[in-house]
Amino acid sequence: MSPLELDRDPAWLSREELDAARQRLPILYVDAVPVRVDDRGAVSAVGVLLRLGPDGRVSRELVSGRVLHHERVRDAILRHLEKDLGPMALPRVPVSPQPFTVAEYFPTPGVTPFHDPRQHAVSLAFVVPVAGDCSPQNDALDLTWLTPDQCLDPGVQAEMDRGHGVLLRQALAHLGHPV
Amino acid sequence: MSPLELDRDPAWLSREELDAARQRLPILYVDAVPVRVDDRGAVSAVGVLLRLGPDGRVSRELVSGRVLHHERVRDAILRHLEKDLGPMALPRVPVSPQPFTVAEYFPTPGVTPFHDPRQHAVSLAFVVPVAGDCSPQNDALDLTWLTPDQCLDPGVQAEMDRGHGVLLRQALAHLGHPV
Amino acid sequence: MSPLELDRDPAWLSREELDAARQRLPILYVDAVPVRVDDRGAVSAVGVLLRLGPDGRVSRELVSGRVLHHERVRDAILRHLEKDLGPMALPRVPVSPQPFTVAEYFPTPGVTPFHDPRQHAVSLAFVVPVAGDCSPQNDALDLTWLTPDQCLDPGVQAEMDRGHGVLLRQALAHLGHPV
Amino acid sequence: MSPLELDRDPAWLSREELDAARQRLPILYVDAVPVRVDDRGAVSAVGVLLRLGPDGRVSRELVSGRVLHHERVRDAILRHLEKDLGPMALPRVPVSPQPFTVAEYFPTPGVTPFHDPRQHAVSLAFVVPVAGDCSPQNDALDLTWLTPDQCLDPGVQAEMDRGHGVLLRQALAHLGHPV
Repeated sequence: MSPLELDRDPAWLSREELDAARQRLPILYVDAVPVRVDDRGAVSAVGVLLRLGPDGRVSRELVSGRVLHHERVRDAILRHLEKDLGPMALPRVPVSPQPFTVAEYFPTPGVTPFHDPRQHAVSLAFVVPVAGDCSPQNDALDLTWLTPDQCLDPGVQAEMDRGHGVLLRQALAHLGHPV
Repeated sequence: MSPLELDRDPAWLSREELDAARQRLPILYVDAVPVRVDDRGAVSAVGVLLRLGPDGRVSRELVSGRVLHHERVRDAILRHLEKDLGPMALPRVPVSPQPFTVAEYFPTPGVTPFHDPRQHAVSLAFVVPVAGDCSPQNDALDLTWLTPDQCLDPGVQAEMDRGHGVLLRQALAHLGHPV
Repeated sequence: MSPLELDRDPAWLSREELDAARQRLPILYVDAVPVRVDDRGAVSAVGVLLRLGPDGRVSRELVSGRVLHHERVRDAILRHLEKDLGPMALPRVPVSPQPFTVAEYFPTPGVTPFHDPRQHAVSLAFVVPVAGDCSPQNDALDLTWLTPDQCLDPGVQAEMDRGHGVLLRQALAHLGHPV
Repeated sequence: MSPLELDRDPAWLSREELDAARQRLPILYVDAVPVRVDDRGAVSAVGVLLRLGPDGRVSRELVSGRVLHHERVRDAILRHLEKDLGPMALPRVPVSPQPFTVAEYFPTPGVTPFHDPRQHAVSLAFVVPVAGDCSPQNDALDLTWLTPDQCLDPGVQAEMDRGHGVLLRQALAHLGHPV
C-alpha cells in the first residue's frame, strides 16, 4: 500500500487517533529478521538496521512495524521489508502464518524482555530470507549484514534497544544456532 | 483481572470507544481449543461451546476473546478459558508464546477462512489441555466434549460460524490427527 | 551425494543391511511438500508426484526419503527434492530445523494415520517452496501441480497411499488453508 | 515398556547390533526439557540431571534417549522422563508432534552445536512440564531445579556436554525468555 493509498483510506488513523488507541489497546505488529541463506537454507548473515533515534543516539534494529486495518499479516511483512530494505530486496515471505515467537512489548520495562515506551505492542515475529539487493530506506542510516556469531557479540547486543537483541537471539535459536 | 478492576482501569474502553477502534485497527484476540488428554498427551476429546447468537440461532464455538491493554497473552488465554469454562477448569496454559496458527478474521467474508462481521481481528490460536471440571459460563448454553472424529462431522462443522470449524480442523491437524 | 559417492561411503548400507535395520530400529525420514508461492508467500499450487507402485497401481505421493548416516537433515531435504523434481527445481530449503509435523509411519496400519509396510519410519515434514523448473525424475511418472482446493478433492486423496493424503491436508492446515 | 518386555521383544537390539546400526544409520532420539510451571504457564524452574560420566567426571544433562522400534514418539518421551525422574513425576507429554527444534548430534564435533561421540543421533526436542514429585533414577546422581536465569550461568553451561547447554538455551528462547 503506497502512502497515497493510505491517505485515501478512511480506515487509516490520524496521528491523534493512533495516539489515543495506543493508550487503550494492544497494537498488532510484525517483526521480521532478514537473513541471507545459501542453497541448503543455512543462514550466512542477518540484516540489522542502523537507525538514528529521536534522542540522537544511533541504535540497531530489526525490521518492525504495525499491521494496518484490513491488511493481511503477510502483506504487512512485505510492506515493512520493502519500506526498510527497498523495493529490490526480494523477500521470501513465510508460507505459514505460524510465527517463531510472539514478542509482547510493554510500555513498562521489565514485564517481558521487550519494551516500547510508546505503547503495548504485540508482535508476530518471522525470519525472512531476502534474495535481492537491499538498500536502507526511510530513517534507516545503514543496513549491516552480520554473521550469526557476530550477532551474539555483546557490543552488537548492547546497541539493540527495546529487546531487539533478545528477539535476534531467539531467532538464531529457532534457526538451530548456538545462542 | 476482575470486572471491577476493569472498570477502574483508565485504559479500559467504553463500548463506543471499542466500536470506534474496531473501525480503525486490527484487534488482537486469542483463540483456545480446549482438549482432554490422557497421560501420554493423546487428545481424547475437544471442548466446543454451544452459544445462542444475537439472531436466536444456536451455534458452536471455540473459546475466543480479546487481549486487553497491558494484559499478557497468557493471562488473556487464562481469563477467557475461566470465563467460558468456569473457575475449576484447571487449564494448562501453553508454556511457549508460539501459537499453532494465527487466524485473521476479516469483516469481509472470503478474504481468509475466518470472518467476523464486527471487526478485523487477528487471533493467536492455542490448543489448551484442561484437567478440571468445566461448566459453561456466561452466555454459553452448554459445553460438549467431542472426539476428534466427531469434530470432523459435517453436521458439527456446519454449526460452527466465523471459520471456527476451519480453526478446529487446523488444530486437529497440528495435533497429528487426520483431517 | 551422487550414487557413486554413496557406493564409496563405508557408512552406506547394503540392501540386506538396510532390511535388517528396518526390523530393529525406527528409520529417520524427511517428507517435503513442494509448493509454488507468489511474492506474498501465498501458496498457489502443491506439487504431487505420480508413481507406479510395485503392484502396477499408479498412486500420488509427496517427496519423501531416508536421512543417511552423517547427513544433515537440510541436505537430505535438498537431495530428495533434486532426486524427484530434478536439478533445476531451485527448492528453498527451510531455514529452521523445526518441522511443521512429525509423521510416524508404522508397518501395522491404524497405529497412526501413516503407514509403511516396509518399516517403522519417523519423518520430519516440511513445506518447501520451489522456484525453478521441475521435471519428474527416477521412478516418478509425472508431477502434477494442484491448487490447495484440488488437493482436498476426495479423488485425489483416495490416490494417496501410506497417509500422504493426511500429511498433505496437515500441510495445508499449517499454511492457513481450510481443510 | 518394562525392561522385561524389551527382552522378550524380537525387535529389540543386542548391544552388538545397536553398535553396528550406529555405524550405519542416524539413530532417532527424543530430548526433553523438564520444567516447573505456574498456573499461567510461566516457567519457574528447569530440571537438569547431574550424571557421572564414564570418565568419572560429573556433568549436567537434559532428559534424552532413544526411540525404540514400534514405539510412538510420545511413549518414548514418557518412558525416558519416567526412567530419569521417577514414576511420580507426572509429566505433561506434549499434545502436538511438532518439536520446538530438531537437534542433530554428530560423532564429529563442530558439524552442528550437538555432539555424540557414539553415534549420529537426530533428536526431537520438547519442553515438558512436570507436575509431580521427581527423584533422580538410574545413573543420575541428582536432579537440580534451576531458574531460567540460573540456566544461563556460564558455570552451568560449562558443565553441560554434547551441546545440551545450547539445547537448554534454545528451549528457553522458545519459551520467550531472554537468552
